[in-house]
Parts: sequence; C-alpha cells; structure tokens
Amino acid sequence: MIDTIDHGAAVRELRLNRPPVNALSDELIRSLHQALKLAAQDGVRALVLSGSPGRFSGGLDVPLLLTLDRLRMADLWHEFYALLGAIAQSPIPIAAAITGHAPAGGTVLALFCDWRVMAEGEYRIGLNEVQVGIELPPTLMAAFRRLIGPRKSEQLAVSGELIFAEEALRIGLVDDLAPPEQVAGRALQWCQKLLALPQEAMLGTRREARLDLTALFQTNLEPELERVIASWWRPETQHTLQVLAQRLSKNKS
Amino acid sequence: MIDTIDHGAAVRELRLNRPPVNALSDELIRSLHQALKLAAQDGVRALVLSGSPGRFSGGLDVPLLLTLDRLRMADLWHEFYALLGAIAQSPIPIAAAITGHAPAGGTVLALFCDWRVMAEGEYRIGLNEVQVGIELPPTLMAAFRRLIGPRKSEQLAVSGELIFAEEALRIGLVDDLAPPEQVAGRALQWCQKLLALPQEAMLGTRREARLDLTALFQTNLEPELERVIASWWRPETQHTLQVLAQRLSKNKS
Amino acid sequence: MIDTIDHGAAVRELRLNRPPVNALSDELIRSLHQALKLAAQDGVRALVLSGSPGRFSGGLDVPLLLTLDRLRMADLWHEFYALLGAIAQSPIPIAAAITGHAPAGGTVLALFCDWRVMAEGEYRIGLNEVQVGIELPPTLMAAFRRLIGPRKSEQLAVSGELIFAEEALRIGLVDDLAPPEQVAGRALQWCQKLLALPQEAMLGTRREARLDLTALFQTNLEPELERVIASWWRPETQHTLQVLAQRLSKNKS
Repeated sequence: MIDTIDHGAAVRELRLNRPPVNALSDELIRSLHQALKLAAQDGVRALVLSGSPGRFSGGLDVPLLLTLDRLRMADLWHEFYALLGAIAQSPIPIAAAITGHAPAGGTVLALFCDWRVMAEGEYRIGLNEVQVGIELPPTLMAAFRRLIGPRKSEQLAVSGELIFAEEALRIGLVDDLAPPEQVAGRALQWCQKLLALPQEAMLGTRREARLDLTALFQTNLEPELERVIASWWRPETQHTLQVLAQRLSKNKS
Repeated sequence: MIDTIDHGAAVRELRLNRPPVNALSDELIRSLHQALKLAAQDGVRALVLSGSPGRFSGGLDVPLLLTLDRLRMADLWHEFYALLGAIAQSPIPIAAAITGHAPAGGTVLALFCDWRVMAEGEYRIGLNEVQVGIELPPTLMAAFRRLIGPRKSEQLAVSGELIFAEEALRIGLVDDLAPPEQVAGRALQWCQKLLALPQEAMLGTRREARLDLTALFQTNLEPELERVIASWWRPETQHTLQVLAQRLSKNKS
Repeated sequence: MIDTIDHGAAVRELRLNRPPVNALSDELIRSLHQALKLAAQDGVRALVLSGSPGRFSGGLDVPLLLTLDRLRMADLWHEFYALLGAIAQSPIPIAAAITGHAPAGGTVLALFCDWRVMAEGEYRIGLNEVQVGIELPPTLMAAFRRLIGPRKSEQLAVSGELIFAEEALRIGLVDDLAPPEQVAGRALQWCQKLLALPQEAMLGTRREARLDLTALFQTNLEPELERVIASWWRPETQHTLQVLAQRLSKNKS
C-alpha cells in the first residue's frame, strides 16, 4: 500500500499506492504510520509523502468504513489521530507532494507536514467533511487554521468547499505548484535544500516553529476522539455517507 | 428602524433603515438586538444584515450621543456590547451585506458576522475610531485582528484609516464584492449555500471555528466597559467629537 | 555610531552609522539603546530608525563576536535582548526605514518597530540565522510569526532564506517600498500622520494592539537567554561562524 523509494541515503519517498484513489483504509493508515517509524529507525533525514499521478488521496474510504462496527470504527479514528500525531511530531521534515486530488483526509495528511507542493491544474483540495455530513474535528480545524488563518479556515470548513490548486496556493493552503509529473521532484529538492543547512540549527528552529502544532498532540485527545466517534454514528452523518457511498458505487459501475 | 424581509421561511434579511445614514442610536441598537432574538424564535435559519443603497451604517450617532448624560451613555455602551455579543454568538449564520459606506460602528457590526460582501466602488470601510478621538476597545480590536491579522489590524486601528472596498477585499476585511444593487442578493445566496448542507455537521463545525470569537463574550466584560465608558468622557475625546458633530451639522445645512 | 537628526521637535531620526555595513557590535547595541532612552527624555513623539544608503544593517558583527569570551558574549546577548525590549515597548511609535540590505539582526530590529518601509530593488531581508549555524531564538520567532503568520515564518526561519524587498512586501514582512533615497522620508511621513491624530486615542489603541508583542518582554527571559548563549558555543555553530568570518575576511581583501 506504500511504495518506498530512497533518493540516496538521506531522503525517502513514501508513495501512497492503494488504487484506485488511495482512499484511507485502516490498513493504509497503519502502513503509513509504520513506514514513518521505519524511516526514523533507518536514519532517513527527510521524507516526501506522495500519491499517484492525478490522485494524492481521496480521504477516508467511506464505503469501507460503513462496513465497520463500532469497535473497529473507534479503532480507526484512534489510528488516524496517531498517524496525524506522528506526522506533526516527526523528528525529520516531511514534504507533501500532492500529486493530484486531495479532498478531506487527503488534505488532512498534508496539513501536518512541513511544506506542500501541489499538481497545478484542475485538481482539488480542501476539507469537505461538512459536505459529506462529518463535523470537522477540533484538532484538524486547528491545523487548518494555522495554515490559512481564522477567517478563511472558518469559511472553508463551514461550507466544506473544495478549491483548485491555484487558489490553494493563493490562500496558503499549499506552498508551491508544479506540473503533475514534477511534484515529487520538487518536494525532493525542498528536502535537499534543508539537508544542506547546519542541521542542529535547522532542526532546533524547526522544533521551535512547530511548537503550537506539536502541542495539539501533547494533550489528552480522548475526550475529542469520543465526540468524533460518537458523531460518526449520528443519523444525519450515516445518511449522508450512505448516499455518498451509493453514488460512488454507481460511478464505478 | 429595521425592515424585515423574509426570503422564504429559512432566510431573513434585516435591513437597517434609519435615514439618512443608518447611524447607530440607542433605539436602533435595541431594535436590531430585538430583531435577532425574534429571528431565532421564528425558526429562521440564516440572516442577512443589510443597509441602504450606498450606506450600510455610519457608525455610532455621535451628535445624538453627545446629548446623553453619563447614565444613558453607560447604558448605550452596554447595549452595543450586548448586540455585538448576540451577533458573535448567533446560533444561526449571519451574512453582512455591506451596501455602501461602513465607517467605525458600521464596520464593527460586520466584524462579528460570518461573512461579508461589500458594494464595489468608492465606498469606505474601517475602524476610524482614533480619528474621532475614541480609543479602540479591546473586544473590537480582537475581532478586527481575527479577520486581518496582528500586523494589519495594529496599523489600521492605530492610524484610524478608512479603506476602499477593493483594498478591504485584498486584506480580508470583506470576503466578496458585488455591484451595490446585488450586495444583498449575494449575501442571500451565501446563506442558501450553507442551508443546503447537512445542518448538524455545518452548525457543529461553525461552532468550533468560531470558539475564539464567542469566547470574547464569555468573560466578564464589565471592567472593559468601565474603561470604555470612562474614556468617552476624556477631554480629548469630547473635544474631537464636538468638532466632528459641528462639521456634520454644517455639512447638513 | 548613531547619527541623530531631529525633524522638527516631534520626530527624531536615529541613523545607524557604523561603516561599512552597520554590523551590530556591543557598542552599537548599547548606543542605540541609549539613544532610545534619550529620545523619551527629550520629549520626542515618534522615531525613525534608518541606516546607510543600500545598507540598513548587516546584523550581528560575527567577526567581532568571535573574539569575545564567554562572559562578554553573554553580556552581548543580554544587551541585544534589552534593546529589542526597548523597541517593542517604546512609549512612542518607531518606523523602520530599511534603507538597504537587512539580513538577520538587521531584520530583527525592524520586527519590533511599528511599521517598516524598505528600499525597493535588489535588497535582501530575512532571518538567515540557520544558514550561519544559529538556532533562531523563541522571542525572535514570535515577533516574526506575528508579522507574517505561522506558515511563512516557520518555512522562512527553518530554511534561513533571505528574500527581496518586493516579496517582503507581498508577504507582509515590510509594509511599504520606496526608492532608496526616499525611504527615510517615507518613514518620516508615516510618523507625522500618526502625530496629527488625537494622541490619547492613538497611543491607547497602539498599546492595546501591541500587547502580545510587549508581553514577550514581560516574562523572565533568563532561561531563554541561557539557552541562546549556550547554543552559540556549540561546535556546529562555532564552525559555521568561523567559515563565514573567513569568507567575509577574504571578500574584504
């Protein structure tokens, strides 16, 4: 589910590979978390998180998630938060190479990285959770707000709008654009630029600059997770997700 | 003083109607607060706050306020804060349709709404309190800062500058521009877009996104109000307001 | 080391004058701090902090600092923080007239002023501390973040990038550009505009708007200073600074 490509000894690319749209299943979430741990053990010094051409990640795999019982669903949310915490608190920089569409969970992964480059063109990004009946959890809201400010994050989160790459660059949701086939390469260059710097100074400054982001995961998130999990089972959410799953299933056939 | 126009059962427009410039008197402040309460009781699901063509609101009615004694002046500030608190904490979204000029108190009303569309052209907006001798109160500063950031809010508040609609859009003080006659319609569309979403998810996300804004009104504001009211009676403030009132009176005749 | 130019009784310009690049020595730091105190005593109502044509300040004088022992180095950091605190907490507005290059410490001085105008053209600004092996101290990071937000400040601080004046304007690191010979004049105009306002209202609003900046200096900064001073003596930092000093020395000869 994760292709590992080492670019020399220092930079490793983790490429999401779960066709057709790199939707986040419990297995993909665990695999990615595991790959992050392995990178640290292997002495990798920077990471690129990429997806497939035209598709970074379609977010949580709703049709699959609708088959899970309450226990497995609760597990999945815990694992998703653990993954986000691992990205946010990564001891080494992570560049998101957003190779294409990145709705909802696809955007969420990128929020906690250090830097984001996105495929230019008709690709969409954003937190459309509300559109599919999901209340945006506080920790995700906080990371969104950190990147684009209180005003834009409120308006985009409440309306659940997806935006195109060019607008994402304009408002600061991504930091650079590149032709789709050059997105991962651009992220690699960004990593190499950081690795050419005095490392203690760079890593210490990085730690200081990200204190507010890492702090999100250094409180007890159980109360938030309980609310997030409970809201998954609300009639409105279940109904909206079922309608979405049926539409996805029709599109496929 | 407030024209109520229902656009279907879900969206209500509250149109300020106190000629010539919709200046905020104690009566208008109370009427608007009352209209907000009534909307909630009537089951309205979103509000548009609009003004007259070319004039959203001229802010506090300085010539009238200069006739008030200390007791009535203290009442007025309490009522103004109560109105702002009702806008900030509104259980339903409010779009500000800034149909024209909106200096000082006119801008303040809009700061606490969910979204702002302004008439394009030579209309001005901003917090020019300092220009008329009034120190900008902390709660208003906090809401201003939330929209446009620490740097811009400091510089605009300290200099008391008014800016044109186009610059207001550029810095994020408003979210959209429209020809004057289409401003209210654009705000209505924004409301309808939100109402087409799953409502629990939308309202829950809205609550989360606005927690910092609503928190402003969930502390004891009495000490701030005491300082605000005291500063109204400072010689510098009284003198500057008297000069302003005389100029307004000459302009009229 | 500081040229004092009074523009009438109200506005004083403090022009850094330590050729060739206005690098910050312990003596220059103390002189500037002293000049700020003197201005307050002399009843000056606003300040312009300017540099030489083409060169605002080259930041800390690294070749000189490398000759200091531990005690004098600790003194220098204490004096630098005391100067920054005096700028941040100045009772009167200070406009930075960034007349040219302003790397590292040059930028730092400007961060704590009220407003920044920079020479347009190929002049560079930014916090390149990481490039020269210095971890960016928390108080400097906080002021940087206040001006340009969490995302941009993280990325620029971690990469230690310098940017040109035009980009600095675009991201909000400076507030205006002017031809090099007009930079100080533009700063003077900005001061005069503020002084034409009702002064109690202006100064009270300024105090409120800068509370988060002044608060940085109203905690015990000793623990931070101890860490900053200790990190100066790290092998990586010393090595990187020595290489820099040798390059500067070669450039000179």
